[in-house]
Amino acid sequence: MEFTFYNPTKIIFGKGKIAEIGAELKARGAKKVLLIAGKGSIKKNGVYEQAVASLTFNHLKWIEAWNVRSNPTLAKVNEILLLAKKERPDAILAVGGGSVIDTAKAVAAGFYVNDVWGLFEKKVEVLNALPVFTVLTISATSSEMDPYSVITNEKEKKKWAITSDFIYPKVSIIDPSVQSTLPWKQTTNGAVDGISHIMEFYFLGKEQETTLALNDALLHTIIQMTDTLKSDSNNLSARSNLVWALTLALNGTSGVGLSKGDWSVHTIEHALSALHPEIAHGTGLAVVFPAWILYMHKYNPTTFERWAKNIWQCDNVGDAVKKMRDKYSFWGAPITLKELGIKKEDITLLAENATQRGPISSFKPLTKKDVEEILKLAL
Amino acid sequence: MEFTFYNPTKIIFGKGKIAEIGAELKARGAKKVLLIAGKGSIKKNGVYEQAVASLTFNHLKWIEAWNVRSNPTLAKVNEILLLAKKERPDAILAVGGGSVIDTAKAVAAGFYVNDVWGLFEKKVEVLNALPVFTVLTISATSSEMDPYSVITNEKEKKKWAITSDFIYPKVSIIDPSVQSTLPWKQTTNGAVDGISHIMEFYFLGKEQETTLALNDALLHTIIQMTDTLKSDSNNLSARSNLVWALTLALNGTSGVGLSKGDWSVHTIEHALSALHPEIAHGTGLAVVFPAWILYMHKYNPTTFERWAKNIWQCDNVGDAVKKMRDKYSFWGAPITLKELGIKKEDITLLAENATQRGPISSFKPLTKKDVEEILKLAL
Repeated sequence: MEFTFYNPTKIIFGKGKIAEIGAELKARGAKKVLLIAGKGSIKKNGVYEQAVASLTFNHLKWIEAWNVRSNPTLAKVNEILLLAKKERPDAILAVGGGSVIDTAKAVAAGFYVNDVWGLFEKKVEVLNALPVFTVLTISATSSEMDPYSVITNEKEKKKWAITSDFIYPKVSIIDPSVQSTLPWKQTTNGAVDGISHIMEFYFLGKEQETTLALNDALLHTIIQMTDTLKSDSNNLSARSNLVWALTLALNGTSGVGLSKGDWSVHTIEHALSALHPEIAHGTGLAVVFPAWILYMHKYNPTTFERWAKNIWQCDNVGDAVKKMRDKYSFWGAPITLKELGIKKEDITLLAENATQRGPISSFKPLTKKDVEEILKLAL
Repeated sequence: MEFTFYNPTKIIFGKGKIAEIGAELKARGAKKVLLIAGKGSIKKNGVYEQAVASLTFNHLKWIEAWNVRSNPTLAKVNEILLLAKKERPDAILAVGGGSVIDTAKAVAAGFYVNDVWGLFEKKVEVLNALPVFTVLTISATSSEMDPYSVITNEKEKKKWAITSDFIYPKVSIIDPSVQSTLPWKQTTNGAVDGISHIMEFYFLGKEQETTLALNDALLHTIIQMTDTLKSDSNNLSARSNLVWALTLALNGTSGVGLSKGDWSVHTIEHALSALHPEIAHGTGLAVVFPAWILYMHKYNPTTFERWAKNIWQCDNVGDAVKKMRDKYSFWGAPITLKELGIKKEDITLLAENATQRGPISSFKPLTKKDVEEILKLAL
């Protein structure tokens, strides 16, 4: 068991905490902030107002960039980079969910290079970034406490990631109460995303008992709290527990000792949403992960069986996958490609996209042919 | 549910990782290092040799301070501070267990003030500290990844703590393999210490399901791995899992949402070892915690019953405490004051020392009288 654990993000969690963002920026020397946001829901739920009131109170200047959408694009990153290079802010404040934060991180790192996509292609290394701060409005990706940014290059149909310690947010404010008014499907997508993050590590497990036991606990909690919210979406206690579990799902804790995780399901999902940008990330994962488990469980049966037993109280993996799909359906997530509008004849192109950089998965290399077989199990 | 989570310590974990300490120091600008150590066991088990080889390889100068003992003293801190203020190192490297690391942290903060004990008395605030690095040789206190230092002022019979973000270690190397050759009682003490850290938070729980579920997982893992090591102390997989769980027991994760924890058992134990410095911290906790649970469980029955059921498979707290004491005995820990050589007539003085700064415990203020009652349950 070998690993490095490092996560310097400061989390300030609780109702009303958005008011602290200005002081946190100021304490770290910020004077001029680039605020990045989505399509405007933060103007309806009071988050924008709270955030800028805190900036004003702390005498900070700011400029704004709006309209980041889900599956955020390279075009948008480049558009905001033009603004950033002109205005030269000394900090970036993302106010939104994973897409907004990932965009902010790409801008933060891209600020110091000529061609930001070169960082994603690994032609250039991330050697610096503007400090990123976040006010989280949708829990799902854990981007508020991780070193990743995933961006879609629409022209080249590539949804790729960068990883760097430089893009860990310095401070993230998580006020769970602002998530009560989200459309239900975003809670479902967030839960599925968090569960998927944990499982990208989990199934590699052999002797990492501490990490596996923590992951059992996180999976249980996410499922239990999402069930509670399904019938009572204003339950702040359940929301708080869900939201924190989703942050922990990918802040490093869940992956300790499990090398860098597998991520082949994410790679397949990234192909899905690169080719069909209307598909939400959590939605794609809900369809692909159960199929992937059915295909892969023979390669590390003890750990898949542990999961079947501990999480779903099933003696075999097939039954557990059925229960998992039933749960996802109950939450309103699609569980077949058909529900996403994808047909059998689309599979080859998806498998090609997913394996364009070679076979995927770290415990059993998956070729294009394997990915086709997995996707067939999701029809 | 409100909290702030911040833990910037980088953990490098695994067999052979001590070799990386020099490069980590160098990468953070260190040129002259003050190495602090205990009584010399690190010269027998190869840890010292590995650490200084890494310093040499990275062209770092260093000076050494030895003979930190368990329940580390203010006198020792002041002795090392004289050396530090003369030699002016730019980093501190603790090579040892919690006592060595706590001493290193006190020296790091004390370097910038005239009277280090003033920091413990809260007369002066910690506003700076030399950067602390650690090579951990005994897992127990979590000092390798926390912002605390506990020091005993022998003259005044006070065992007090400082807390500051400035004393988080920058980097801690944890090579679990070096702990295989420890005397068994140190594994027991470490396990009891970790379990106690988690429980200082746990029993405050009400609706913090994510944290409680993670704590159930950590408690299970610590118990299970200690049992395994009891019959096979060279089992590196069990050792790795235990060691990591003990770090997580007090790195912030286990306390999320549970205010700052209760710490009244620690306060009672600190009185014990302030008055009887020969008592190891873990040993004192093994005696006091079961008695404290018997006295306190009526104040938050649901959570104490959850603990009884989830950890000990018992329907009531009394039965669970019996199982807990049996487990501690099986590991070789004392479970009565008598075994520590403490008599009924010593109790008043202990209770006085524990409550010298006023009533303790955050969910039910414990007066001197309460502490006496608790200690009587441990006779």
